[in-house]
Formats: sequence, structure tokens, C-alpha cells
Amino acid sequence: MSTATVRGDRSAGSPPAPAAEPALADLSVFRDPEVVTVLGASADPGKWGYWLARGALTGAHRRQVHLVNRRGVEIEGHPSVTSLAEIEGDLGLVVLCVPAPALPDAVTEALARGARGFVGITAGLDRATGRPGAEVELARTIREGGARIIGPNCLGIYDASTDLRLAWGEFTPGALGIISQSGQLGSELANLAADRGLGVSRFVSVGNQVDVSARELVADLADHEATRVVALYVESFVDGRALADSLRLLHAAGKQTVLLTVGASTASQAAAASHTGSMTSALDVVDAACRVAGTVRVETPAQLVEVAQMLLDAPLPRGPRVAVVGDSGGQGAIAADVLTGQGLAVRSLDPAVRDSLGALLPPDAGIDNPIDLAGAGEQDLAVYAEVVERLLGDPAVDAVTMTGYFGSYGFHTPSLADAEEQVARRIAAASVATGKPVALHSMCRDSATITLIRELGVPTYHTIEMAALALAGATRIGAGSGRELEDVAVLPAEPTHGYLAARALLDAAGVDFPGAAGVRDVAGLRAAAATLQAPYVLKCDWEAHKTEVGGVVLGLADAEAAEAAFVEMSARLGGGLYVLEEMDTRRHTVELIVGARHDPSFGPVVVIGAGGVLAELLDDSVVELAPVDRDTARDMVARLRCEPLLAGWRGAPAVDREAVVDLVVAASRLICARPDLSDLELNPVRVAPDGLLAVDALVTHRQENP
Amino acid sequence: MSTATVRGDRSAGSPPAPAAEPALADLSVFRDPEVVTVLGASADPGKWGYWLARGALTGAHRRQVHLVNRRGVEIEGHPSVTSLAEIEGDLGLVVLCVPAPALPDAVTEALARGARGFVGITAGLDRATGRPGAEVELARTIREGGARIIGPNCLGIYDASTDLRLAWGEFTPGALGIISQSGQLGSELANLAADRGLGVSRFVSVGNQVDVSARELVADLADHEATRVVALYVESFVDGRALADSLRLLHAAGKQTVLLTVGASTASQAAAASHTGSMTSALDVVDAACRVAGTVRVETPAQLVEVAQMLLDAPLPRGPRVAVVGDSGGQGAIAADVLTGQGLAVRSLDPAVRDSLGALLPPDAGIDNPIDLAGAGEQDLAVYAEVVERLLGDPAVDAVTMTGYFGSYGFHTPSLADAEEQVARRIAAASVATGKPVALHSMCRDSATITLIRELGVPTYHTIEMAALALAGATRIGAGSGRELEDVAVLPAEPTHGYLAARALLDAAGVDFPGAAGVRDVAGLRAAAATLQAPYVLKCDWEAHKTEVGGVVLGLADAEAAEAAFVEMSARLGGGLYVLEEMDTRRHTVELIVGARHDPSFGPVVVIGAGGVLAELLDDSVVELAPVDRDTARDMVARLRCEPLLAGWRGAPAVDREAVVDLVVAASRLICARPDLSDLELNPVRVAPDGLLAVDALVTHRQENP
Repeated sequence: MSTATVRGDRSAGSPPAPAAEPALADLSVFRDPEVVTVLGASADPGKWGYWLARGALTGAHRRQVHLVNRRGVEIEGHPSVTSLAEIEGDLGLVVLCVPAPALPDAVTEALARGARGFVGITAGLDRATGRPGAEVELARTIREGGARIIGPNCLGIYDASTDLRLAWGEFTPGALGIISQSGQLGSELANLAADRGLGVSRFVSVGNQVDVSARELVADLADHEATRVVALYVESFVDGRALADSLRLLHAAGKQTVLLTVGASTASQAAAASHTGSMTSALDVVDAACRVAGTVRVETPAQLVEVAQMLLDAPLPRGPRVAVVGDSGGQGAIAADVLTGQGLAVRSLDPAVRDSLGALLPPDAGIDNPIDLAGAGEQDLAVYAEVVERLLGDPAVDAVTMTGYFGSYGFHTPSLADAEEQVARRIAAASVATGKPVALHSMCRDSATITLIRELGVPTYHTIEMAALALAGATRIGAGSGRELEDVAVLPAEPTHGYLAARALLDAAGVDFPGAAGVRDVAGLRAAAATLQAPYVLKCDWEAHKTEVGGVVLGLADAEAAEAAFVEMSARLGGGLYVLEEMDTRRHTVELIVGARHDPSFGPVVVIGAGGVLAELLDDSVVELAPVDRDTARDMVARLRCEPLLAGWRGAPAVDREAVVDLVVAASRLICARPDLSDLELNPVRVAPDGLLAVDALVTHRQENP
Repeated sequence: MSTATVRGDRSAGSPPAPAAEPALADLSVFRDPEVVTVLGASADPGKWGYWLARGALTGAHRRQVHLVNRRGVEIEGHPSVTSLAEIEGDLGLVVLCVPAPALPDAVTEALARGARGFVGITAGLDRATGRPGAEVELARTIREGGARIIGPNCLGIYDASTDLRLAWGEFTPGALGIISQSGQLGSELANLAADRGLGVSRFVSVGNQVDVSARELVADLADHEATRVVALYVESFVDGRALADSLRLLHAAGKQTVLLTVGASTASQAAAASHTGSMTSALDVVDAACRVAGTVRVETPAQLVEVAQMLLDAPLPRGPRVAVVGDSGGQGAIAADVLTGQGLAVRSLDPAVRDSLGALLPPDAGIDNPIDLAGAGEQDLAVYAEVVERLLGDPAVDAVTMTGYFGSYGFHTPSLADAEEQVARRIAAASVATGKPVALHSMCRDSATITLIRELGVPTYHTIEMAALALAGATRIGAGSGRELEDVAVLPAEPTHGYLAARALLDAAGVDFPGAAGVRDVAGLRAAAATLQAPYVLKCDWEAHKTEVGGVVLGLADAEAAEAAFVEMSARLGGGLYVLEEMDTRRHTVELIVGARHDPSFGPVVVIGAGGVLAELLDDSVVELAPVDRDTARDMVARLRCEPLLAGWRGAPAVDREAVVDLVVAASRLICARPDLSDLELNPVRVAPDGLLAVDALVTHRQENP
């Protein structure tokens, strides 16, 4: 493992700015090429070229494999040629393992020989040639030649269903598709999956994505039959919105994706920026994209694999209500705590179910959730099955978690093996019949019962936290159906400067503001005051941050006060447009912030948050990709931590929540319709029982905020 | 495993009310008895009596072992007797494995024969005899007989250093002491520890704790040489304060404890109440006790074992600053996120250290935290050691986490094994030399390098989350030195009724209130108004919840308004004591709540929280065991989420934080001095730049609030 320029063991750089639409969009050459040519094949097990050649040869029974080695050495009993010229016929898919300086010529020659695809292992072309952009240029050459490239700087690709093994590392065939922006992280995922008995259907280390992107590779899995669940690691979301849409289509086709990304810490943000050259995305926006995609984000490789196992083995939970069955009160209580901590609901059971369990179990058993068998299972193993069946039959239970000794009986006491097997079969059958998952946490790491029950569709866990994490991840996927983003007709770009123009734009979108009028002199001020209701607010129209520059005065009791304020402010800030506005003096108001913006990765998003002091102390905001419909907007409002204020706090009347919903929908559509805007912000929005009033508005154009 | 009355596989019941001080406090009989007698020994591997007998026999080389079986069968080649009468000499430590109805007679006979200790496996005595309290009575008999009992309803005890194996299950000797209120959870801990290569020094399943308590067993580990780290599982903290003190003494003696408990969900709270008969403790109070004890609470058995491994293998971190070394940018970024999520600090490195790494590593390496070796380690393994040594040498780094491929080189490429071993030795030596821990997350589950480096004091992990959890747990222990609770002189009980009396009590303790006077009639009201500053507040003295009954009127502008309010309120609420008080009209105030109470498990505690709307939305309160000193009080204030308000919010001046510190200290001492009180509450306390004023006070006596 030692060539300075050939490495795929680290996270790959960021893709360049999107080039023209590729001439050749078909990725089939990366699935089952008729010919594979390894350029830079080696007989030295310390070189990547050895592993790529060896891997390619494992598919020699179904495709032609050419190995190119400068000295023409024999590799694993297979001859090599010294140059492409010696090869007759097609080159097919070409693996680039030569030193970086040799890359451009090799690619040119291969293209001339009709190569249709490249896997770029070699890294560091820009550095080797001293020309930044050399990799991008190579990609352009390849696309202009009608071919495609994965990488460079990738660990390779693997496809179990076609015996295509062009990657470093060992893979076990299975149903998990892995697409990873970091080759080594992809390897870690494959290793952890193998530890859990999960094989890989397809593995692609996407490298620097100078051409083929992670999004394309995800979309390409839609008709990849062997792939049932997708593991996706991405550091930079270049076209996050399109990726979310591709994931949504996979989800709709019954293929679930689990997403791993970074950016939860300033350290990882800085690291990603330095080694991929692009920013990580804010995780709340990534999670919003996951809701659109019908997928779920996890925080570690091990979590990803555990959620994947649950998705592969068991039915998707239809809701968060979990019943816990323990054969130890302590383990049941810990399970309840851990499941609850993961956002699942361990609720009290229906009295009829409790009665039914009470009749079955001894007097000292715990017959409410978490259920404690109190030795009844030990005395008669069938009790486990009986209890699980009754719980799965309860319409108020979405899933069952078993925790404790079950899975160990036959292992420690062989005479109990048959009985335990029968119970395992009953439990698995009940899960299948009801379409509800059962997760088994067993103190036994491995046993015949554990192997069997897992094969029958009951995922098994050796620690309760992994059972809880997996069930919570599957539940989030089960709960989200994905959400197709409506197309919003684009309106013409139009300069919008100052407060009155922002008001007019938002007013046209249906947002309510207090009465107001523009004034430029004392006469205008007097005329405005005569038509508006006191008390007034005076604002300088053109300042974005009015408070900071003394450009806003509140609580002007009458026309006289307003005039005095105008004289003072205009003397200080100079001539121009000012706004006299009615002051919102309604009681029982709650302040919110509503905004919308174009996210660099995920496009238009809409945000709602608590206003005032709460905004910063509560860190209380909810974001979704825009546009949103009323249901989504209503759900956003419900997720606010300050939601109790809206419902009527300490005897205050409830405020007009539907007006907030209207506003969120309107802001979300406006930002989609106006790609020339970067930001809309309504801060604060004052919501009272009789409706809301936005009392400040700010609109920013893209060019103003590059 | 099937006798209805003999079970130790579930959480044990709660202990009874504390009995009189035991006549025999010495627990040495449970450590290394000269004689062990198993009552209810069995030859049937399906019975507990078999496993207990078999375990007892493993110590037969150093102590006399008597087996008592009704039919006198041979057990594992060892004869048994049919009754105690057949045994000559001492019975020593007696294991109670007979059916419950036979227990009382067996105990009486054993006591008459001079038994000094009992291990009560058999459960269900109360139910078998139909007499609630039968177990407690049995314990009394035993103590009056000069003996002690662990259990009943326990899984047994094990001591590696004396070959005392009187428990179901397998144990590997080691350095971890396990004390568990749930036998099966104790087994799970022992199993998970064994999976990680950690052996057990001592195991005690405490069962129903009718006599010997978990606290006593913890204290008893202080001079148990083989025990270096303690795993403690407790569901109900009967004398939590004494337990915290025992743990603190262990901590001071260099033995760290990791605590597992339940109660994070309403489901586990209800379950614990139903199966142990006592309430779980609020986890914020448990965590406060952990801070006093110098220990740390975890949420799952696996977490406990991982933290224990870190404590056993590595030096205690002296602070939270972790440097991350990855050989993949992706893995380094994930590690940074996960470590940060665990409360550790992955900070930017000192420029001099960055320069030093920059000179060592290739241009595309990440030389700030997280460090990305970018293939440099792969090219020269010594780079790993060099980088770790430089980081450990940085005074601004408290610990290093390695993540990625290291640990796999020799495993996958045998020719690299020697070089990898040398690097492992250098890394471990640097950890020892600097007294700073290194945690290694390796993609390889097991290899010679991993085994070696762990033996040398570098704990190893197969998932990054467990490395982070372990390091975070050890860091919390390393940061906390424990805190000895000062003795506060007890003051005489004294009835304190009504607002003025509560004010007087707290005023005497140094708390500032607005000026006020008690009034009973209009004349008194007028006199009070004349001496106090308007505006006023009128309060009914005797109502605890004044607002709810209309017993408080704010903002009385002058004496006339005060009189009108008094006439109205006294007509409505009747004659009695009212209070005219100056209204606090200071600007720039922040409202807090300060309280103190006697916790049923942990004794006096003091609480500070945000006031007003924030109180409930932010869930913002901090609790510590009382009394607290000024440093602890200051730390409590700093931990409030609303702390930014105190520091001066959006240009407002900072408020008088030291006055809050004084108040917290005073409240914490007062609750200690007055065991007759159940609660003190000052809500709200208005803190301004020039000091604080408590504007309501409530004192509750224990008898009022049973």
C-alpha cells in the first residue's frame, strides 16, 4: 500500500462547478462491462494495482479482463500486456491505477480505443502536473469522448450481482448498496455490515466526483435488483435538492436509504471545508431534506449499519409506540429509558391488554409497559411468544422490543433448545403476520436461536442502545412518506429596496402588515398621521438594520409626537423615504420570526422560529425545504418549542395559528418564485387571537449578499 | 432453571424502612469465609441449587464446603448431607436455596449452629407465607442472632480473590467490582465486560436488601485490593446521601465508580415503583449526587463497560480537550462530531503545533484538529507515533483519539506487523509518560497490535461512539474531585406560617426583600403606606398560592389605590393578616427562581432556575446537593441556559450575579439547618444591576406536605 499518487483511502475532494450535460448519461458500463482493463496492474501486494488486478480477475469467468503492466509481469497466474496497443478489441471499463503524470496520455489513448468508462483510483493529478483544474480537464476530455469517469481519488467500485470487483478491500455479497464520498469510511461501513452478517450489493467510492456524482449513482440504484437498502455517506451536498429527489424516488420504489454526514461540530465543518474545498450543510437543512426524501440521517457508521439491518430484516414500523418485554425488571426499565430517549413512545397499555397479560402472568409480574415476565418465561418458554403475540395484536402497539435472557436458553441449557426454537418461530410469524417489527435484545451474543429468529425477520441486538437506535431510525423512515416538492412558477426578477417595497412584495403574497404610509417631509407626515391610527411608529425606509442606526422610534402617541420624531430623525439620517406606521398594541400577542432563503445546497427553504429573547435562548427554529403545503406548515408550528405560547399560556387566549400557517406557506412559495432573492425575513411577526401582523420585513437580493 | 420460589433473575424489591443499627457491621464473612454451607444444593442442572453448589465447590481447596440436600444425593462427585444436624463444626456462610416456606426454620437452625452470614437466593417469602413483612422479620431474626444477610431474591455473590463463587453465571477474574440491584443486569454487565476482556473482582447481587445494603457493599470495596473500578446498578436510592459519601471516599482512594440507574422515562419510573415499591430518583438529583461523589452516570450496560475499560486501562483525562488523529478525512470529521456531541472539546490547535505537523505531513494533510494524515501514516507508520507524541506534548491537549485504519496494518499485511508494533509501543509509552489518555478506534476488530496496545494502556474501540462515550465518561470523573458536604448546625424547628414569617426567616438568612408591613385594617394600611414607597403591592399573608385566589394586587400607584385594594380584598377573603409591600420597579431585571428542599433519597438540595415564561419553556434549572459553597453556586449560575440574560442581553447592563451566588449559598445552608422544613421557594427573584429582591417567598413544613 505505498504509491504517493495512488490513494483512495481518504475523503475525496469536492466536485467542480457542474459542466455541460454529459453526452453519455448511461452508467451501465459501471455495472456489468463486457471487458475490464486495468491500467497500472501490479504483482506487488503492497500496491493498489495488485488488488485492483486481483479483484478484476475474479470476474474473468464472465468478462474479458486485460491487465496492463509496464514490464508485462504475470499477476496471480495471469499474463499482462505492456501497453494498450497490445490489446485487441474493446477496452470496456478502464481502471486507472497508473501514476498521476501518466494519466492524461493513458486516458487519451484509451478513449481513442473506444473506452466507455473509467474508474479513477489515482489521485493528485493537479498536484503532479502543477495545474489546478487538471482533473476537471481530464473529466471534460472523457465526457467529450463519449465516456464517463468515477473518481478520481476513489477506492473503486464493486457489484456483487455481476462479479465486478474493482476496489480495494473484501466484500461479502448481500443487499446493502454503499455509496461513499470517503473510500475508507465506505470500507468501515462494509466491515461493520459484514460483522453483522450484512453483505454488500454494490459499493462505489465516488472520489472527487469530477464527472459521475453521488446523486447519479444513487438514482442508478433504482433498478439495481440486488440492492434493497442504501448506505450513503456524503460530506458536501453539491446538488442536495436533486439528491433528495432521487432518494425520494428510491424510497417510493421501496428502497430505503440511511444517510451519514458530518458538520455537527465546528471542527468537522472546518475539516470538510479544508479537505473537500466546500462547506458542510447545516444539519437542520440536511434533516429537512431527509424528510422530503423519506430517509433518515444517523451520526456514526455503526448506527447506519444497525438501522440498515432493521430495514433489511423487519417490516417498517407504522408509528412510534413500542411495547417492551423484559425478563428482568431492570433491563425492561433501561430499555424503556433508552427507547424513550430515542424519541419512541413507551406508553401505558390498554386496560384490556393489561388484564389479558395479568391473567397469563404471575402476580408479581409487571403487566404494563415495560412488561416484566417475572420468571414466567423461564418456567414456560411459550409465555414469551404468547405475550409478544398479544402485544402485536394490540392496534395501539407499533413495535415490540424484547430485552434480556431470551436467545440464551438453548445455548446455556441444550435441553431447552427445541422449545426456544418453537418460540422464536412463533414470534417471527407474529411479526410477519401483523406487519409489525420485533427487535430482540439478547444477552447472548450468538446462538442458534438468534441466528434463526433473525433469518425469520426479527433483527437481533447485543446492546439495548443499538436496538433502540435501529428501531428509532426505521420508525422515522416509516413515518415519513417523502414529500414531492411542488413546482412554483418563477416570477420575473425585480429590484426590491427598502421597507415599503418589502412590505408591498409580501403584502401581495398575502402577508398582513399594520397600516403605513411613506413620508418625505413634514407635510407628508401630517397627511399620513391624519389617515392612520395612533400610536405610531416611525421608520427609516432604507436601512436594513433600523434599530442599530436609530432608524426606528416606537410608541409615538399622536401626530405631534410623530412630527417631532420625524424632524429629529430626518435631521440625523438625512433626506429620503421614511415610513409612518400604526403601532400594534394588541394584547396577548406572541412574537415569531418567519423567514425564507435559498440554501446553497438544497435550494429554497422556509424557517419559523420563536421571536424576542426566546429566539436565542431556546434555539427554537424549524426549517423545511420550500415550498411547503399547509399540513407541513402546521407541523412546523407544532414542532416549535415555544408552541405552548401559541396554544394559550397561563390562561391567555390561544392565538391565530392558522394565520401563521398561511404566512409560512406564503413565504415558502415566494422564495421559490423569486430566485433573484437570497432572503426574506419577517422579524418579528406578532400573532394575536385575531390574526397576525408582520411589523418588520427585510428582503435581500442575491447580488447584495454574494 | 425452574423453581417457582427461587429466582434471582429479576430486579429485587425495595428495602424496608431502615431497622436499628446492625449488631454486626463487619461484612468479612461475605469475602472469605472459612466454611460455606449450601442449603438446598441440587444435582439437577435445571435448578439454582445445582449452580450454587457447583460454584461453592470451586473454592473447596481453600475452605470447607458443606452441601445440604434433602435426599443426600451426590453433587458433582461430592457427597451431600440431608440436614444441618449432620454437619460437624461451623456452618460459616450459609447459602439459602431451599423453597421459601422452609426458609424461617432453616435460618433459625443455622443461627443456633452459629452461622455468621447468609446469601438469600430464594425469593417470595412474603407470598409463600402470606405474610407481608416476613422477609423483613427474617432479617431481624438474623441480625439479632449476630449475623448478616445479603438478599433475599438475589443472584448471589462472587469474589475472585478468594475463589468464592456463590452465584449463578460464569465469571472471569479481573479488576471490576459489580454491585447490582438487579441480578440479571449484573450478569449482563459481567458478560459485556467479559466480551471486552474485562474480568470481575467481586460481584454482589444485592436482592431485596432487607439487611446488607448496596451502600455498605460499596463502602466495603474500599479495601478490596483486587477491585480497581466499580460498576453500580441501583434502581432506588434509599440512603442516597450516604451512598454518595461512600462513593466519594472510594473515589478519593483512587477507585472510580460508574453508575447505572433508571428513571429517564415515565415508563421506567412506573415500572420501578411497581416492582421495587419505591420511586426512582429524579435524574438531575442523581447527577448532582454523582458530582458530590466524583462519579459518573451512564445510560446503558454497554456504556458502563466502555467507561470502565477506559478507567481501568488509561490515565484519567485532566480536561475535555481532545485531539483527533484520523487516516481518513471522513472518519476524523465523524470523530470530531461524535466527541463534540459527548461534550468534549475538539478545538483548533496552537499555531506552533500546526506548524510542527505541517512540516511533518504532506501538503494535502489536515494539520488542524481533526488531523488527517492523508496517507502519510500508510507510507511510514512511524508518522502515527510522531503525530500522537507531538499532540500529547501540547499542554492544550488533554487526550488523543485515533480513528481509522491503524491496528489493521499487521493484520492485513503481515510484513508490516513489526513496524506497527513499534508504533504501538511508542504511542502507549507517550500516553504513560504524559499521563494523558489515548483512545484508539480501529476498523480492525481484533489484531495483535490491538491486543498489545491495550495491554500497554491504550484502550481500543471498534466503534467511534463507544470511544467517545468512554472518553467523555472518564473526563467527567477526571474533572470532578468529589465534594465533601459541609456539616451545617441544625437550628430548632419553628413553625413558619404565611408570607411575612417566610420573609423574616429568609431575611435573617441574608435574603433581600422589598420594604413591607403587615396590616390588618384600614388604619394599619394607611400607616404602612405612609412609611413605604409607592407603587405598592398588596398581598394576602396566609395564602400559599396568592395569584390563584386573587390574593395579590400589583401596581397600586398610591395610598388611595392601596386602600381601595385592601377594602376589596379583605371583603372578599375575610379578616386576617395582609401585607403592603413596595413594588420593585427597577429596569433591567432578570427573573430567577431559587429553591431548596429535602429530597427523599438525597437529603437537602438547592435549585436555581429561570423565572417567568422561560422557566417552563426552557426547562432551565440546576440542582446540587446542599449545602453549596460560593464556587459551586457560581458554577450553578453559569450552567443556566438563561445565563446570557444575566451577563447583559442586547446591550442591557449585567445584573448582580454575586448577589445570586449569595442567595443560593444562603438557601442551601438554611434547608440543611432546618430539617423541619420540606421546601423553600423564592419565586420570582428579581435581579438587577444593583442587587436582587425576592418578591415572593414560600416556606413549607414537612408535616404540611407529607
